[in-house]
Amino acid sequence: MARKILIQLDGDPQPSTFDSVVAVDAGADVLLRHGNVTPDAAVPLVHGAMFTRGGDDLASTAIFVGGSDVAAAEAVFDRVRTTFFGPVRVSVLLDPAGANTTASAAVVAAGRHLPLGDPAAAATLRAVVLGGTGPVGQRVARLLARKGVAVTVASRSLSRAQQVCERIASAVPGSRLEPVLADGAITAETLRPGTPLAAALAAADLIVAAGAAGVTLLGATGRGLVGRGLVGRGLVDRVVVLIDLNAVPPAGIEGIAATDKARQEGSAVVYGALGVGGTKMKIHRAAIRRLFESNDAVLDAEELLAIGESL
Amino acid sequence: MARKILIQLDGDPQPSTFDSVVAVDAGADVLLRHGNVTPDAAVPLVHGAMFTRGGDDLASTAIFVGGSDVAAAEAVFDRVRTTFFGPVRVSVLLDPAGANTTASAAVVAAGRHLPLGDPAAAATLRAVVLGGTGPVGQRVARLLARKGVAVTVASRSLSRAQQVCERIASAVPGSRLEPVLADGAITAETLRPGTPLAAALAAADLIVAAGAAGVTLLGATGRGLVGRGLVGRGLVDRVVVLIDLNAVPPAGIEGIAATDKARQEGSAVVYGALGVGGTKMKIHRAAIRRLFESNDAVLDAEELLAIGESL
Amino acid sequence: MARKILIQLDGDPQPSTFDSVVAVDAGADVLLRHGNVTPDAAVPLVHGAMFTRGGDDLASTAIFVGGSDVAAAEAVFDRVRTTFFGPVRVSVLLDPAGANTTASAAVVAAGRHLPLGDPAAAATLRAVVLGGTGPVGQRVARLLARKGVAVTVASRSLSRAQQVCERIASAVPGSRLEPVLADGAITAETLRPGTPLAAALAAADLIVAAGAAGVTLLGATGRGLVGRGLVGRGLVDRVVVLIDLNAVPPAGIEGIAATDKARQEGSAVVYGALGVGGTKMKIHRAAIRRLFESNDAVLDAEELLAIGESL
Repeated sequence: MARKILIQLDGDPQPSTFDSVVAVDAGADVLLRHGNVTPDAAVPLVHGAMFTRGGDDLASTAIFVGGSDVAAAEAVFDRVRTTFFGPVRVSVLLDPAGANTTASAAVVAAGRHLPLGDPAAAATLRAVVLGGTGPVGQRVARLLARKGVAVTVASRSLSRAQQVCERIASAVPGSRLEPVLADGAITAETLRPGTPLAAALAAADLIVAAGAAGVTLLGATGRGLVGRGLVGRGLVDRVVVLIDLNAVPPAGIEGIAATDKARQEGSAVVYGALGVGGTKMKIHRAAIRRLFESNDAVLDAEELLAIGESL
Repeated sequence: MARKILIQLDGDPQPSTFDSVVAVDAGADVLLRHGNVTPDAAVPLVHGAMFTRGGDDLASTAIFVGGSDVAAAEAVFDRVRTTFFGPVRVSVLLDPAGANTTASAAVVAAGRHLPLGDPAAAATLRAVVLGGTGPVGQRVARLLARKGVAVTVASRSLSRAQQVCERIASAVPGSRLEPVLADGAITAETLRPGTPLAAALAAADLIVAAGAAGVTLLGATGRGLVGRGLVGRGLVDRVVVLIDLNAVPPAGIEGIAATDKARQEGSAVVYGALGVGGTKMKIHRAAIRRLFESNDAVLDAEELLAIGESL
Repeated sequence: MARKILIQLDGDPQPSTFDSVVAVDAGADVLLRHGNVTPDAAVPLVHGAMFTRGGDDLASTAIFVGGSDVAAAEAVFDRVRTTFFGPVRVSVLLDPAGANTTASAAVVAAGRHLPLGDPAAAATLRAVVLGGTGPVGQRVARLLARKGVAVTVASRSLSRAQQVCERIASAVPGSRLEPVLADGAITAETLRPGTPLAAALAAADLIVAAGAAGVTLLGATGRGLVGRGLVGRGLVDRVVVLIDLNAVPPAGIEGIAATDKARQEGSAVVYGALGVGGTKMKIHRAAIRRLFESNDAVLDAEELLAIGESL
């Protein structure tokens, strides 16, 4: 039985110890860790995975692509996949800055309270992703769109929100996406009635805050405006799920503690970053294990969500 | 029992994953991988191998020198050996860009069909190494010269071929080497009769193509001119061995597929890069195992050939 | 049971193989090795240790801080400790260039012959540290001062010696330290009677030479002046311990061989660098093992000395 070798391709000068420790705990026997990895630098490293083992042993080598720069990691991930040819390939996982595992864990959490698994019911749901153009936010929006949820992508930059919506729309045919401007913390004072953002918040079944660390996106008074429209939709009993993925105080959604995990707060259920973190870690470990079950797994956000839903 | 530690000294910024995976599969327990290694940088890394374990445990630490720049790796290899003093040393293997394992595997393949193991018989043999000044070609020429074979070193640069012949001649006293110019693909049209190259090809028992990837050195019509002189030497029944070490199409020797392995083609036996690759991998793994059997092995092309012949 | 992961933070471009081999031999299962580590670069690497494992498993991750630049390593060590918060921490060991293990091994050796373990008796002892401002010398002086020994810190630079004494005095309240100038090798010819250095050598129970490699600090005739004052202190029978930590000829203390280990030489007991080296290695290995016994060990020179004394 060949030892399980994980090739860690990280775009940062120092490859992540976080990803390495998780890999070890998920059963990788040997780590080949590389920092400063660019798409070009990745090619010979991938060749070394492809041309050293044959047959069933090929599944005992796998590749992890990470780093703090998500776009750079995606470029490496793309190059890794085009470097393979035919069956001469190994499994590969993309999780730069934990964006994929975090986003999928957030959607798993939402799915505990909302009918995301039922396409007809999911099509009646509406979500707002605050900080929706960042690495995690984009992925949350994409995963929800694939479920059929109508997603509002909020950002300080309307044009960036627009670009994210267009990219997701082309990847997920039939998806319903709306870009909106959300400039600064949303409060009863700053949120102007009648704006697309106000309408989206009033109609929302789910709010996910995926902004920068330590930036409040939704204030306490702003929260009072969320989900009011559910009444108009005849969904008086439906809970509103609020998920704040910011681990650094102050909270991204005022009133949510990082450790909140399915905490009931009136008609809302709230999650903080650490409350989602346990699921995130489980998905991460399960994904590493999954890499070594075959030589052809390609694990991006969607595959990680499927793993998370099966846990 | 001390764990087997392999210190991988690679001249490239990213140390080779190929060499690491092979080392793991050959039984190395721990890899200490270093990129950008220069001779000066190697010294403290070698000291760390010398001064940490004593007695029999010293044999459980070893050094691998690799990288895509063969000359740079040779300089590191030389420095490693001069850093040792007396019995305070560990075993070391040189295999930059796989040049040593590939060259020795090619000679092992040739030896299956030609009497390389019998000095008197080997002295009657003649070989032509196309691309004979590259990392692999040089080593093939040196290994064959040590067997007593008369070797023609062909290159686009006659002066480089001359230098290679002189270097081998000083390392292998009594060897018979001839540099020749071979400019572009050799075909019936381009090969001028009466030239040293034409004479060498006609008299050859063995042709090894060790040129750059994807460059044809010997065309189909050129192949028809190989070995004709064997008749004149009264060797009508002797096969001609053709080995193409180029893995990237088009072939280095036209008509040879990368997967050819001792394929009979008229009076010729042909090998492609992958056909030699299995032996190369076996030599590589056996060499890593050999490192950990004592603390004083120094494995360059000659030692790898001896390992290959004993498999 | 979680595998033992050691995160090796090294300030040099190539992380030390010496420290890695010792870590493997001391039971670390996985090494995560990092070169060019600055305080800023250390922070995310420490986070990766803090946020991946919980409960008892946290003790199976630890950090080693090393490198040839001692001051740079100390800055990393300081940042590592301030990055932890509360119980979310892992054990950490500082041993740049072996300075801490070497200094503590020297004091362990001295303690075999001098009553360092008895505070009242130790308070009667006097030591001179030659090369006392270097990484090892500073630590030897600090460790002896903590034992209550009166320490003379000798250096080519009186101002640097003064700074070292002040730093130790503020860390060790009540310690007795004296800076002196020692310019060049001390011999009967160069040592002027009546100077602070002459008085210190005459009164010394212990001399430790911790200067640069290959520099003689105390010549043969200079040695004749050491310990004469013990007679005046009524300590005629007391041995003088001479420890030379320089492993590269010529010796730091003339007449001591690197392999000397408690060698009797008249009324003196002498140690060379290799004579202390066995204890140094034992302390190093025991310290690595100690890291994995809890998640909150902080091992600097003092803790290593305690480990050395318990071996």
